Amino acid sequence: MSSPDSSPTARSGKLSRRALFGTVGVGVVAAGAGVAVGRLTTPEATTYADTTVVDFHGVHQAGIVTPAQDRMHFVAFDVITDSRDELVALLKTWTAMASRMTAGEQAAPDGALGAGQYNPPTDTGEALDLAACQLTLTIGFGPTLFEKDGVDRFGIAGMRPAALVELPKFTGDALEPARSGGDICIQACATDPQVAVHAVRNLARVGFGTVAVRWSQLGFGRTSSTSTTQTTPRNLFGFKDGTRNIKAEDDAAVDRFVWVDRSDDQEWMGGGSYLVTRRIRMLIESWDRTVLHEQERVIGRSKGSGAPLGQEDEFDELDLDSKGPDGPLVDVAAHVRLASKEELGGIEILRRGYNFTDGSDGFGHLDAGLFFIAYCRNPLEQFVPMQQKLARNDAMNEYIKHVGSAVFAVPPGVEGDAFWGSTLFGGGLAADDEAER
Amino acid sequence: MSSPDSSPTARSGKLSRRALFGTVGVGVVAAGAGVAVGRLTTPEATTYADTTVVDFHGVHQAGIVTPAQDRMHFVAFDVITDSRDELVALLKTWTAMASRMTAGEQAAPDGALGAGQYNPPTDTGEALDLAACQLTLTIGFGPTLFEKDGVDRFGIAGMRPAALVELPKFTGDALEPARSGGDICIQACATDPQVAVHAVRNLARVGFGTVAVRWSQLGFGRTSSTSTTQTTPRNLFGFKDGTRNIKAEDDAAVDRFVWVDRSDDQEWMGGGSYLVTRRIRMLIESWDRTVLHEQERVIGRSKGSGAPLGQEDEFDELDLDSKGPDGPLVDVAAHVRLASKEELGGIEILRRGYNFTDGSDGFGHLDAGLFFIAYCRNPLEQFVPMQQKLARNDAMNEYIKHVGSAVFAVPPGVEGDAFWGSTLFGGGLAADDEAER
Repeated sequence: MSSPDSSPTARSGKLSRRALFGTVGVGVVAAGAGVAVGRLTTPEATTYADTTVVDFHGVHQAGIVTPAQDRMHFVAFDVITDSRDELVALLKTWTAMASRMTAGEQAAPDGALGAGQYNPPTDTGEALDLAACQLTLTIGFGPTLFEKDGVDRFGIAGMRPAALVELPKFTGDALEPARSGGDICIQACATDPQVAVHAVRNLARVGFGTVAVRWSQLGFGRTSSTSTTQTTPRNLFGFKDGTRNIKAEDDAAVDRFVWVDRSDDQEWMGGGSYLVTRRIRMLIESWDRTVLHEQERVIGRSKGSGAPLGQEDEFDELDLDSKGPDGPLVDVAAHVRLASKEELGGIEILRRGYNFTDGSDGFGHLDAGLFFIAYCRNPLEQFVPMQQKLARNDAMNEYIKHVGSAVFAVPPGVEGDAFWGSTLFGGGLAADDEAER
Repeated sequence: MSSPDSSPTARSGKLSRRALFGTVGVGVVAAGAGVAVGRLTTPEATTYADTTVVDFHGVHQAGIVTPAQDRMHFVAFDVITDSRDELVALLKTWTAMASRMTAGEQAAPDGALGAGQYNPPTDTGEALDLAACQLTLTIGFGPTLFEKDGVDRFGIAGMRPAALVELPKFTGDALEPARSGGDICIQACATDPQVAVHAVRNLARVGFGTVAVRWSQLGFGRTSSTSTTQTTPRNLFGFKDGTRNIKAEDDAAVDRFVWVDRSDDQEWMGGGSYLVTRRIRMLIESWDRTVLHEQERVIGRSKGSGAPLGQEDEFDELDLDSKGPDGPLVDVAAHVRLASKEELGGIEILRRGYNFTDGSDGFGHLDAGLFFIAYCRNPLEQFVPMQQKLARNDAMNEYIKHVGSAVFAVPPGVEGDAFWGSTLFGGGLAADDEAER
């Protein structure tokens, strides 16, 4: 059994994609003082040569407490078969592919070039020259996979965890069905975006006839740190985001707020988590015309340092009781207050969101915002009460609109010969029933 | 007068955005053999610390022969004012902002934090901790800026170059108006996508009331090399793209095929170029089910090496006459043949496109493809005949759909106190007329 969070391990005997073509340019990011160079001589500042591999196998899935990679492609699928066998077969195929691709290998052993001239390639090829780039692939199962329109399509309705239900409607929700829900999701994160897109595209490719893409979302920049080794990024409001996020190094918080215990409810979810996504459109045109004082009141932090209002440093204590001349320094409706564990009875979640920009909204503005991703042990006890409070009172609501939403049960990690979902399909009562049919 | 392609120059006395906050993590891309690390200890492989500055000023605009940066955000605006003065004022403001942002500075001197508590910040802040990242900003003027619905809105109809006309309809075009056209475009390229998005967003912000976003496109990975110093990237067909592209180092080709000479037509375009964009949806689901032999026949190159069929190396000569057992090794309908200068009477263009993935197409597939960008000296003599040939005969047409299209006149670069478009608005006859009104 491999430990998910072990110290560096040697990985040998596997051929990376890049090794197929020898060494191409290895990028090194320039450091130090700003330099100007001629337009023909700019150095390559690239991520595609990042050979770091995040281990796919472990007690938990990777991509949750893994230090958040800079780029993401997230996809939600509808399952379009009624055959449990086809679904399980796809999950097994996906697991093998994910294990390979996260190691920097092609999607299948024969790959883009080795399947023969008269067969479709088993890898689409656009990552042939790209290294592993810290790719993680994380799967989740939506409520509709267990039961849809009253139908138990795959014999797993009885194994649906009580916590896996459609989220309630929150005040102000403006959800678009085409950007919401889904039977299965896969989150692909990597330091190079083409590596993430390649992974999703190849998983979708082999799923043809079994699953169909319901929606997908590209995230161009992370808005959360999930490790104390990372700097805090900024969201499109221009503020540092996720300063008080749970960090992977905080074992106690991770165990309490992220990982499901097998005794929580359904045994098959032990070591898993729950994933909530919210596509949050930011009304950046209104925000950009707002004065700095109001922006900082809405957030509750200084825009520059990220410090709580009244403090100096980003990581200074959030003092919700400190009084200013006009009332509390941190406004009663400030986002940082309402989202704080102090106001939420101790609730915390692990955030892992991304900035997005998708064309135009059709009304002269960029369609931009934050693709919110949160992992938690029980959405009904963590995300839902938090969002209910925020949806009602958050001063930020004037500047945002939730247009997409989904919730997924994230099964535990894969070890040995297990596959994505094998604790649900392979080892449980339903699988035994299936075998007898 | 500064030379656009000079050797490295020292840039001093300017405070970069990052300097405001001291040194944050400097990313170095891992190199060498693949390594696996624990999930909590992955190194940062980041582009945001890339302090390389591409000089904004020069005879030509940057972002054309500049080695293509990995990420792009492209925006097309409608001008919504009828006031020439407002338009010119915006172009001047944009020039100053672009000069600053490409140098790694905030959009305006007071910026995100210095405009006062009771004013809207003059920079939106999401790039506060990000370096220049080789940002280039390149502006273009569409035919409708000169005359729209028969109206000469800004007194420049007489200065429209003959080459700047709407592209003809090509066989198979399936253009969406909401993804096509535009009065003004700005191409933002950078090694970090947040730097490109920040630039577009801030230019759109100050344009409020004067321009409105018509469409925008994020490109997650470059599909062309524009310099011999770069490796050839792959498009979403999995093939190396742009092997025979014009390279910046080839002065003769650049002068002949990219830069407009002042004697070509309108004097104000001397040192400029023309920009054609095509949003090319790839029908990747069909492509991915096609056998390798057919894929290589369609392209005319080996998928692995990128070599022309029948050759060994990517850069081996394209021999259109070589015969195989079943006819020419490079098919008569192969993309590489039809797009070749040999078949086009010597025509070449400078390609600078990007891979994109935008959610779902609503029919179970990823909306993915190639955002084609080409620069040329005269679209009517270069892009149009090339595309007419491709649209009629290219074997690739079975797997692509052109859904967006636009053409723009790209004015020359900015030197001294000039501004974007000053040769059109500021120094010409129309400007004198304007001054007398």
